[in-house]
Amino acid sequence: MNKRVSVYRKEHFNAAHRLHNPAWDEQKNDAVFGKCNNPNFHGHNYELVVKITGEPGADTGFVIDLKFLSDLINETVLQKLDHKNLNLDVPEFSNLNPTVENIAIVIYDLLRSKIDQKLDLQIRLYETEKNFAEYPVS
Amino acid sequence: MNKRVSVYRKEHFNAAHRLHNPAWDEQKNDAVFGKCNNPNFHGHNYELVVKITGEPGADTGFVIDLKFLSDLINETVLQKLDHKNLNLDVPEFSNLNPTVENIAIVIYDLLRSKIDQKLDLQIRLYETEKNFAEYPVS
Amino acid sequence: MNKRVSVYRKEHFNAAHRLHNPAWDEQKNDAVFGKCNNPNFHGHNYELVVKITGEPGADTGFVIDLKFLSDLINETVLQKLDHKNLNLDVPEFSNLNPTVENIAIVIYDLLRSKIDQKLDLQIRLYETEKNFAEYPVS
Amino acid sequence: MNKRVSVYRKEHFNAAHRLHNPAWDEQKNDAVFGKCNNPNFHGHNYELVVKITGEPGADTGFVIDLKFLSDLINETVLQKLDHKNLNLDVPEFSNLNPTVENIAIVIYDLLRSKIDQKLDLQIRLYETEKNFAEYPVS
Amino acid sequence: MNKRVSVYRKEHFNAAHRLHNPAWDEQKNDAVFGKCNNPNFHGHNYELVVKITGEPGADTGFVIDLKFLSDLINETVLQKLDHKNLNLDVPEFSNLNPTVENIAIVIYDLLRSKIDQKLDLQIRLYETEKNFAEYPVS
Amino acid sequence: MNKRVSVYRKEHFNAAHRLHNPAWDEQKNDAVFGKCNNPNFHGHNYELVVKITGEPGADTGFVIDLKFLSDLINETVLQKLDHKNLNLDVPEFSNLNPTVENIAIVIYDLLRSKIDQKLDLQIRLYETEKNFAEYPVS
Repeated sequence: MNKRVSVYRKEHFNAAHRLHNPAWDEQKNDAVFGKCNNPNFHGHNYELVVKITGEPGADTGFVIDLKFLSDLINETVLQKLDHKNLNLDVPEFSNLNPTVENIAIVIYDLLRSKIDQKLDLQIRLYETEKNFAEYPVS
Repeated sequence: MNKRVSVYRKEHFNAAHRLHNPAWDEQKNDAVFGKCNNPNFHGHNYELVVKITGEPGADTGFVIDLKFLSDLINETVLQKLDHKNLNLDVPEFSNLNPTVENIAIVIYDLLRSKIDQKLDLQIRLYETEKNFAEYPVS
Repeated sequence: MNKRVSVYRKEHFNAAHRLHNPAWDEQKNDAVFGKCNNPNFHGHNYELVVKITGEPGADTGFVIDLKFLSDLINETVLQKLDHKNLNLDVPEFSNLNPTVENIAIVIYDLLRSKIDQKLDLQIRLYETEKNFAEYPVS
Repeated sequence: MNKRVSVYRKEHFNAAHRLHNPAWDEQKNDAVFGKCNNPNFHGHNYELVVKITGEPGADTGFVIDLKFLSDLINETVLQKLDHKNLNLDVPEFSNLNPTVENIAIVIYDLLRSKIDQKLDLQIRLYETEKNFAEYPVS
Repeated sequence: MNKRVSVYRKEHFNAAHRLHNPAWDEQKNDAVFGKCNNPNFHGHNYELVVKITGEPGADTGFVIDLKFLSDLINETVLQKLDHKNLNLDVPEFSNLNPTVENIAIVIYDLLRSKIDQKLDLQIRLYETEKNFAEYPVS
Repeated sequence: MNKRVSVYRKEHFNAAHRLHNPAWDEQKNDAVFGKCNNPNFHGHNYELVVKITGEPGADTGFVIDLKFLSDLINETVLQKLDHKNLNLDVPEFSNLNPTVENIAIVIYDLLRSKIDQKLDLQIRLYETEKNFAEYPVS
């Protein structure tokens, strides 16, 4: 079988964060980031959907074993982000604003090297039910 | 950073409508539109998802400020459609059948000129949890 | 087995309505009902959850056959309300404001006589995901 | 009409928190609260459902105006909790562990005095889709 | 603090089952159970919500540790039911029809003895999004 | 109007299945498929989303009549898969492992010939809320 299929695995994590640009004064940070600039942080239940595209194996019918993918996401992404303060506990955000866009890019970079290069990878990340991001673009 | 990311904002509105082609007699309208042709209208809770694609700003990490986008959708789309009768209260549908396809196109046209031309725009509109449309196509 | 269990069946319908008290002038109707007083109507996707409480039958394990309950709700409630204008098409609301509270009471009254008196009945009705009602109270 | 009905209004807020008992050493805090004891906080999208029970008004068909209730929840609860650090920014939790149980009780106490005593009040609070609490009990 | 609060934990499992009464002939089984009587079984994603009611501990703010409750549900219920054929693999259903009502009662009986008798227990079980049961009744 | 729009219709079905490769011994099947290899089967509530892309008709505003599409999915797909054992009752899986990838491909093949060739077709299939597949790829 040489038909390409996409498979998706959904996971979630809870984290605190703050949107802030240290190059700006507080007035500008407040104007741009509003409530999200609270110096004591706020937080979210992030829903993460990982999409993998490739050909199902002839012997398994799997593009990728979704149990393996779930374990990989847990080890590679959730161990690093779940129940953490993104600004203080996660080195990737020490100089990068943890917007939903940037968190999606960071998660992509964490996973890309762990997944067979023959398979395409895309990240969708929900910060809330109403605000979400996708990287790379379709 | 020159990586393209898509961000999404979800909003909702409630409206009445009727599917009807004035060029047809009632028998043909009933055959084609069935219950949706009720002359006294019926209605829906529409869920609107607006997708914007571009590069996150280096200073903000935002493709677009989702609070700004939410305000823009409210002023441009929801003020016009929310708690309205699409057939009677919205001029765009005076000669256009308010199917989920056509409402999606109308919303795209309302928003396109208000959003930076460097950013791509796509509309997804849920008429019910089971019936939805997307414009333009991916 | 003489253990009481509650079973639930979810259905949905789409309808137009308007909140309005004909004993009031337009100014008062606007002040009280706001956008919901639009004379051309607006509409909703109503989600209806019917709860039945009783003892599972020893031979079936059913409190009530949920397929039978679904058919009963369709014949008794949805035929009357789905794709209708509640104010204009449904006699029960000719002198009763179709608030989510009153629609729940009307649905209860429609179903109560069709269901075995040994079984308890409760209605939950979602007008939107954010606004809903329950009758009778727990 | 003298029939009692319950109506519900759903709102949401985002907050950071930490579970911690200052009377215990870190070892015991870790044993009891695990990842939720992260000193740098984590966070959630809280979903709040407020239930009000009473008789619909004969002139309105409303137990309570759900727009009024939404505004009241915003002023009384969300202004205090949304985009906040519950431990650091909210005085009610300066000596009270912000578990989902205790947050539900605090929200009840904030709202109870603002709502007509003839109406019953109950709070349901979702910390995640999987963990939630209700107060007072049914 | 002597205020009673309910807390809820949601889990899920996947299982095959068949509705069938061996005391009846196939004609009667078909008439009563319809497609659910398929001799080769069909299946569901069951959503299980466990409700525990009691007073939050003064030192923890917990009615019950929801991580402990999740582990208990996994060991006591999911190990027995997840990815199983309820009719063939689960002794509790060797002489009991696995309706959603009866599965809820079986889960209650499995958990009741493992949970402190000072705490009240209630089970809600979703067979599908549209069909669900609750035991004991509220 | 010559604008292309995608429309979607969601349906669901319940089925039992087992993941198994008859060319492998039980040890290898267990290693690869784990709990999904239970010889007595397990099951799922499958959610099926069918996407059709084309130009809305000038007289209807429809890409395709979603009531017609729903009926077509029922006759072509659900009659074959709903309340069935995929391995035993569905000839398409007699030599094909019923993974979510393969079921999506089978559903595509069932529908493709029944839908106007000017219209594009894509299948999304949810095995659980966390595991899903899409074919062909976007």
